[in-house]
Amino acid sequence: MTQSPWDRSLAVTTDIVIFTIRDRKLELLLVRRAAAPFQGQWALPGGVVGPDEGLKACATRALDEQTGVSGVYLEQLYTFGDPGRDPLRRVISIAYYALVPSDRLELRASAAPQAVGWFALEQLPPLAFDHCEIVALAHHRLVSKLTYSTIAFQFMGEKFTLSELQAVHEIILAQRVDKRNFRKWALALEQIEPTGEERRDGKHRPAQLYRLKFPGRVEIIR
Amino acid sequence: MTQSPWDRSLAVTTDIVIFTIRDRKLELLLVRRAAAPFQGQWALPGGVVGPDEGLKACATRALDEQTGVSGVYLEQLYTFGDPGRDPLRRVISIAYYALVPSDRLELRASAAPQAVGWFALEQLPPLAFDHCEIVALAHHRLVSKLTYSTIAFQFMGEKFTLSELQAVHEIILAQRVDKRNFRKWALALEQIEPTGEERRDGKHRPAQLYRLKFPGRVEIIR
Repeated sequence: MTQSPWDRSLAVTTDIVIFTIRDRKLELLLVRRAAAPFQGQWALPGGVVGPDEGLKACATRALDEQTGVSGVYLEQLYTFGDPGRDPLRRVISIAYYALVPSDRLELRASAAPQAVGWFALEQLPPLAFDHCEIVALAHHRLVSKLTYSTIAFQFMGEKFTLSELQAVHEIILAQRVDKRNFRKWALALEQIEPTGEERRDGKHRPAQLYRLKFPGRVEIIR
Repeated sequence: MTQSPWDRSLAVTTDIVIFTIRDRKLELLLVRRAAAPFQGQWALPGGVVGPDEGLKACATRALDEQTGVSGVYLEQLYTFGDPGRDPLRRVISIAYYALVPSDRLELRASAAPQAVGWFALEQLPPLAFDHCEIVALAHHRLVSKLTYSTIAFQFMGEKFTLSELQAVHEIILAQRVDKRNFRKWALALEQIEPTGEERRDGKHRPAQLYRLKFPGRVEIIR
């Protein structure tokens, strides 16, 4: 823990991966870089950690400042620190991620529309730095978490049908899920309970509406 | 990503949590601090990230230099960056961890015996900085991984009995495991195969020896 000789050129930043689902697609929030390096290119929102600023506080602030998105529960993903990841200087970046319902994601009205936007994960533009790698890891973590936690449950609105929950899983996994097995699995977790209400969806017969037993809590499934 | 005004006082370090099992106890590798702050107190091995050094490379180097332990597969755990975690300056630390068989852990002969040592997780001395919190998170991660990956399988020697594998689980979890359920679970994973050999252990009848199907690979169990 001795004095490091290269402090002058070192920066620590945070980068934030925000996923949402819109129009049955998994989408990602990107900002366009105003300065070099990679000027004009799309990148993850992020910022430099301030002298007295916590890491998550930095991520929360940078996300809000650059996109207007706030009130999101960010989880630390991984720290990226390859010496060559920024062509101008040494930058070590702590990545955070979240999966957020799209109705809670209003972008800052003052931001120029060409400076911030949503992109389908399957059709991303070229990204600055190693942000492509950060996004890939975040998606991988999200897919893993789907199988051993209730992360997707937290993504639902207050009341939802099992079909809606299944659709979220299918969109994140990018594959179909067997309806019967999914229902069995989702109910066996004992994380949701019927509300007693039903919703009619098109021609289908009315479907039971469920709610979370423990809203706001992502449970690890043993 | 602008120039940060506080670069001069910022350091990025790595801290390394090495678990092993000896005498049926989960143990942790600690070093005694030679310099302030927390001089003379026990701490995790760790070091300052060099100008052209990758993060994992730093952890590997610091671990080797301070303890003589090498050839360990380190996994990134979490990054700790609370502004007050070091009383002298701002230090952001990337923590790594590994679970390693004790027969692969020879400590550096030249290190003074009072400067590096193994401690039972249940009887740790007071630790420097927030290292107590880092250890707690690493243990929590290890326990979680036990249920959804083959991390403990990798901890075994080349050939092992199911009782030995069960004992490792029980030591890490700090609780008894039902023998029948454990065997069913362990075999259903299809990660181990019988060697055809048996081992006689005391008065018990001879037990089948197993080996890993995919040595060196930690499998995530879906």
